[in-house]
Amino acid sequence: MITETPISSDVFKQSMRLFAGGVCIVATNSNGEWHGLTMTAVCSLTMDPPTLVACVNRDAGAHDIMSATRRVSVNVLTHDHTGLAELFSSSKIKGPERFDEKWTGMASGVPALIDALAALDCEIVQETVVGRHSVFFCEVKNVRLRPDRKPLVHFNREFCAVQAVN
Amino acid sequence: MITETPISSDVFKQSMRLFAGGVCIVATNSNGEWHGLTMTAVCSLTMDPPTLVACVNRDAGAHDIMSATRRVSVNVLTHDHTGLAELFSSSKIKGPERFDEKWTGMASGVPALIDALAALDCEIVQETVVGRHSVFFCEVKNVRLRPDRKPLVHFNREFCAVQAVN
Repeated sequence: MITETPISSDVFKQSMRLFAGGVCIVATNSNGEWHGLTMTAVCSLTMDPPTLVACVNRDAGAHDIMSATRRVSVNVLTHDHTGLAELFSSSKIKGPERFDEKWTGMASGVPALIDALAALDCEIVQETVVGRHSVFFCEVKNVRLRPDRKPLVHFNREFCAVQAVN
Repeated sequence: MITETPISSDVFKQSMRLFAGGVCIVATNSNGEWHGLTMTAVCSLTMDPPTLVACVNRDAGAHDIMSATRRVSVNVLTHDHTGLAELFSSSKIKGPERFDEKWTGMASGVPALIDALAALDCEIVQETVVGRHSVFFCEVKNVRLRPDRKPLVHFNREFCAVQAVN
């Protein structure tokens, strides 16, 4: 029998590590300057209108720019993108320096990772603040898909690839 | 160069399939009767207060009961739980019949899967409706963890196991 533990900061952190999540870079464009960060807290919400949610730390450098421009790209990483995932969560390299020739602008100007599994151009249509985070409700406008690729997943502080089970 | 496609129902569905997600059963207790459904749209939100979000289809049988009781369990499945994931998304077997001796009540009465990776007992503190879905903001109260297990992930209509990459 497993013991039931009341929640605490440490227990919550430990619990959240056990949620496996696809790794994304959520990015934005502010007057031609690109900003972005690595996230796993992105999920599908509803189909009509086509909407996803992204939970962004309000202390993240890109948060206020996203909130102001109300336009973001969600770039779904592939299993060989661990270096990019680390770069976009680095405390040493920040802001536009994180972007290189692997990125191009989508029609709306937000940056898309050329070899992402998917790059979704979204408009933030609603924002709810809870604690130190904002939930961005993002309506998807345009996409670039490469569905033949395999995703990068984060689980228990490790980057993982996936393999189908029977 | 990948073509940029305007969103449509089909394109949105195809895009959302490319978000890899840990598979959960979200469940609730209504006067001793248990209800639950399989979901991947669950993610961590913020630490203070310890909160996660779960996006539940308002047409799901358990939705209204969750919304009324405001208490749910989030059960994180392991890689050998594909049968359970299918059972809790089946259109044939519904309601309390989905539960067997593999489930026990948590202190608050919500059902916990005994051999889940994690079972989180949560209170729904806020609800936002978008299209046919509700976003439940769930404050985590108590947990049972088995962090030595490996998760079940859903990607592109397949159940997957994960393996660490370098």
